[in-house]
Amino acid sequence: MIQETVARYRAYLEKLRAYHHAMGLMSYDMNTIMPKGAGAIVGDTLGVLSEVDYEMETSPEVEAMQKEILAHRDEVDPVIVRTAELAMEERERIACIPKEEYVQFTIDQTIADQVWHEAKLKSDFRMFLPHLEKLIESVKRFARYYRPDAPVYDTLLDTYEKGLNTATLDRFFATVRERLVPVIAKIKEQPDVSFLHTHYPIADQRIFSDYLMDVLGLDRNHCIIGETEHPFTTEFTKYDVRITTHYHEDMVEASMYSVIHEGGHATYERNVADEIARLPIGCGVSMSVHECQSRFFENIIGRSEPFCEAIFPKMQEIFPEQLKGVTAHQFYVAVNKAEPSLVRTEADELTYALHVMVRYELEKRLFDGDLKAKDLPMEWNRMYKEYLGIDVPDDRRGVLQDSHWASALFGYFPSYALGSAYGAQLIKRMEREIDVWNNVRAGNLKPIVEWLTEHIYRFGCMKEPTALMEEAFGAPFDPTYYTDYLTEKFTALYNLK
Amino acid sequence: MIQETVARYRAYLEKLRAYHHAMGLMSYDMNTIMPKGAGAIVGDTLGVLSEVDYEMETSPEVEAMQKEILAHRDEVDPVIVRTAELAMEERERIACIPKEEYVQFTIDQTIADQVWHEAKLKSDFRMFLPHLEKLIESVKRFARYYRPDAPVYDTLLDTYEKGLNTATLDRFFATVRERLVPVIAKIKEQPDVSFLHTHYPIADQRIFSDYLMDVLGLDRNHCIIGETEHPFTTEFTKYDVRITTHYHEDMVEASMYSVIHEGGHATYERNVADEIARLPIGCGVSMSVHECQSRFFENIIGRSEPFCEAIFPKMQEIFPEQLKGVTAHQFYVAVNKAEPSLVRTEADELTYALHVMVRYELEKRLFDGDLKAKDLPMEWNRMYKEYLGIDVPDDRRGVLQDSHWASALFGYFPSYALGSAYGAQLIKRMEREIDVWNNVRAGNLKPIVEWLTEHIYRFGCMKEPTALMEEAFGAPFDPTYYTDYLTEKFTALYNLK
Repeated sequence: MIQETVARYRAYLEKLRAYHHAMGLMSYDMNTIMPKGAGAIVGDTLGVLSEVDYEMETSPEVEAMQKEILAHRDEVDPVIVRTAELAMEERERIACIPKEEYVQFTIDQTIADQVWHEAKLKSDFRMFLPHLEKLIESVKRFARYYRPDAPVYDTLLDTYEKGLNTATLDRFFATVRERLVPVIAKIKEQPDVSFLHTHYPIADQRIFSDYLMDVLGLDRNHCIIGETEHPFTTEFTKYDVRITTHYHEDMVEASMYSVIHEGGHATYERNVADEIARLPIGCGVSMSVHECQSRFFENIIGRSEPFCEAIFPKMQEIFPEQLKGVTAHQFYVAVNKAEPSLVRTEADELTYALHVMVRYELEKRLFDGDLKAKDLPMEWNRMYKEYLGIDVPDDRRGVLQDSHWASALFGYFPSYALGSAYGAQLIKRMEREIDVWNNVRAGNLKPIVEWLTEHIYRFGCMKEPTALMEEAFGAPFDPTYYTDYLTEKFTALYNLK
Repeated sequence: MIQETVARYRAYLEKLRAYHHAMGLMSYDMNTIMPKGAGAIVGDTLGVLSEVDYEMETSPEVEAMQKEILAHRDEVDPVIVRTAELAMEERERIACIPKEEYVQFTIDQTIADQVWHEAKLKSDFRMFLPHLEKLIESVKRFARYYRPDAPVYDTLLDTYEKGLNTATLDRFFATVRERLVPVIAKIKEQPDVSFLHTHYPIADQRIFSDYLMDVLGLDRNHCIIGETEHPFTTEFTKYDVRITTHYHEDMVEASMYSVIHEGGHATYERNVADEIARLPIGCGVSMSVHECQSRFFENIIGRSEPFCEAIFPKMQEIFPEQLKGVTAHQFYVAVNKAEPSLVRTEADELTYALHVMVRYELEKRLFDGDLKAKDLPMEWNRMYKEYLGIDVPDDRRGVLQDSHWASALFGYFPSYALGSAYGAQLIKRMEREIDVWNNVRAGNLKPIVEWLTEHIYRFGCMKEPTALMEEAFGAPFDPTYYTDYLTEKFTALYNLK
C-alpha cells in the first residue's frame, strides 16, 4: 500500500525535476548567451512553466501522498521521507501566495534582471528603481502571507538558512566589526602587486582555468566552464554542473579566484550522494553552507601560502613573461593585499565581511525599517564611507554592483559572511584529522574534498544546515574562529603586531 | 461564442509555445555546450516534457476547439484558422502513435544523437548501428500507423514537404544526373586555391563572421552566432534565432559559407510577420523552402562574382597577410572549385546534388526496399564510387558524416537538393523585378531580403509550400532552371564549351 504511494510520489518527483531542469536551463541561458532581444519571450515561457510548477507543488493530491508517507515514515526510504518533509515546508511557504501573484512574480523577476544588467552598464539606478520596488513589494507581501506576525526580514533570512534571524546576525556582525576593524586600521604599507596587472591574454587565462579545474578535481564531463559578466554556478543535478568566470586581461587574479570560488560550489554539488542526486534534496542544503564551500576553496585554501606554492610553477609556465623573477611568496602576498575597496566580489578576505554588513544593514531597514528603495544609493554611499572609509563614485560600482536584488534574493547576502566564518571553524577540525597543508602544498586537494564529502557534501539536504555544520565542526558555531583566523593571517602578512 | 473559443485556443497555443521553447532550448544546449556526461538526464527531461506536449496536442478538448474554429472559419482571424488546420493534420500524424512509444522515441533520439557524436569521432559505425536500427524501426512503425497503405518513404517525404513523393524525386534526380554528370566529367584543370588554406586564426575569423552577419542584415539583438562541430540554425520564435559555425584554421571558406548558409535560414525566420511570430505557424514552412533560403544565400548570392567583389576588400583588411596579391576574381574562382569530394557539407555547388542523391537512394531502399541498416556503410561506399568516382576511406567521412539519421530525420535530405533547385528558379524571377546584381556588388542585400520577405518569409506557414513557391516563381517548379544555371556558371568558370 504505502510502497505504491512511494512509487507514485517518485514518479511525481521525476516530473518535477524535469520542470526545474527546463526552467533552470532557461535562466542559465538567459544569463549566458541568449540574444538580449529575446527577454520578453523567455519571461512568458518561464511564466507558463512556473505556473505548472506551482500547481504541482501545491496540488492536494501531492499533499495527500506526502502526508501518507510521513504517517508511515518507518516503512519508507529515509530519503523519500526527508523529501516529503521539506516539500511540506516549502508548500506552506508558497501555497499561501495566490497563483497569479506567484506567476507574475516569476515574470517580474525575469524582466528586473534584464533591466538591471542594462542599468548597471549605464550606472542608472532610476531606470532600475521601479522594477526593484515591485520586487520588494511582492517579497514583503509573500513573507506576510507566510508569517503574518514575524518581522519580514527574519522570514527572508529563514528562507536561505533555516532558523537564521537578525538577533543572531546582529551578534555575529558586532563580533566581526569589533575584532576586524582594528586590524584593518593597522595596515599601512602595501605590497607590490603590479605584476598581477600587466597583460594576461584571455586565451592563456583559459588554459590556466582548465588547469585550476583539474587541481580542484572537477570532471569536465559533468562540469563545464563558461564566460559571463558576473561569475556564477548553476546545476541541473550533480551530473550537469556549470560554472562561469570573467576574464580581465589586466587582472589575472580576478578570474583565477572566480574559478576557484565557483569551483568550490561545483565541488559541493558534484559530491552529493548518487542515491539522492535526482531528488529535490540532492543539492546543497543552504546558501551559507554553499558559500562556505566556495569561500573555503577561494580563501582558506586558495589564498594560503601552500596553495600558492603548489600552483605557481604551472602559472609561471603559462605566463613566463608576466611572472619572470616573481616568487611564489611574492605571489601569495600580492593575492592577499587587504585594503578597503568598492566592489564586494573583488574585495580581499579581511575587508570582505564589511561589504556584506552594509548590505545586511540596508536590507534590514528596507524590510522592517523606514528605508525606501529610492534612498538606497544615498544610504549605500553613506555606509561605505562609514564602514570602509571610501567614496563611491557611481552606482555601477555602488548600489547596482550585485545581481542579487534584481533576482529578488533579499536576505541572501549574510550567507556570504556566515559561510566565510563557517570555513574558518571547519579547517580547524579538518587539520586535526588529516594532513591538510602538506597535501595542499603538493597540489593534492583530494583528501580535503573527501573529508568534506564525508562530513557535508554527500548528505545534500538530508540534514538541517545548522545540525549539519555543528556535526562537521564537532561543536556549536563560534564566529571567533573566523576573526582569529583573519587576525592571525593578516598580522603575519603585514607584520602588524 | 466563437470568440471565446478563440481566446481559449490562443491561451492553449501560448502554453504550447512555452513547452516547445523549453524543449528547443534543451536540444540546442545539448548540441552546443552541455557537459557530455549529462546526456541521460536530458533525455529523461525531454521525455517528461514531450509527454505533456503529446497530451496537449492530442487532447480531445483541444480537438473540439479546433473543430469549432474550422466550422466558423469565416468569423475567425485567418492566422488562427490556419493554425487549427495544420494542428489537425499534425494530430492525425501523432495521435495514431501510442503515447509510450512517442515518449520512448524522444528518449531514443536523444541517446542516438549522443552516441552518433562519439561514433563519428571514432569512425565506429557498429557502435551507432543498434541505435540507428531502433530509430528506423520506430519511424517505419509510426509511418504505418499513420498511412498503413502508403509506401513508408513517401509518408516520410511528405512530412518534410507536403505532397512530395518518390515519383517526383526520381524524375528530379534523373534530370540532375543527366544534365550535370557530363558537365562534371568535362572539368580537367583546377584553379589555385592554396591561398584559402594557409593559416587563418580563429579570432580573426570571428571578426569576419561578425562582418558577414552585418552584410546579411542580421540583428545581433535577436540572432546570435555560436560554435559547434556541426553548424546549424535553431529558433525559439523570430525574436531568438541562433546559428552556429565551425572554424577551421586552414580553411577560411568553410566557416565563411557556413555563416552565410545558416544566416540564410536565420534571415527567413527573422522576417516572418510579427502577427504570427508566437504561433506555431510563425516559422519556415518546410525543409525545402528553408534550404532554398540557406543555399540561395550561400551559393547563388554568396558564391557569385558580385558578392565576392563586395566582401573581398573587407576580407583583405581582416586577413592582409593571407590574401596579399590575391584578386577578388581569383577568390571567386577559388570558392567555386568543383570536384567530387567526400563530405556533403563541404561539397561544391556543382557536385552537391550527387551527394544528396546517394542519401536519397539509400533511404528509399532502407524504408521500402531490402537494404538493411547494417549494410549502409558498404552501400554508401559503393555509391560514392559509382556516382562521384571516389573511394571512401572511413565511415567518419562516409556514412557517419551527417547528423540527420541520428536525429531520425529520414526523408529530409532531398530537401537540400530541391531547395537548391528552387533558388535557381527564384533568382530568375527576382532579376526581372529588382536590380539584384548591382545591389549585391555594392554589398547591399536589403532589396533581396525585402523581395523574399514580400514573396515568402512573411507568410510563415500560412500557405502550403508548393503553392507558396509557385506563386513566388510565378510558374510551376521546373528543375531545368537549376541544371541550366549550374551548366552556365561552371562552363564559364572552367572554360568548358
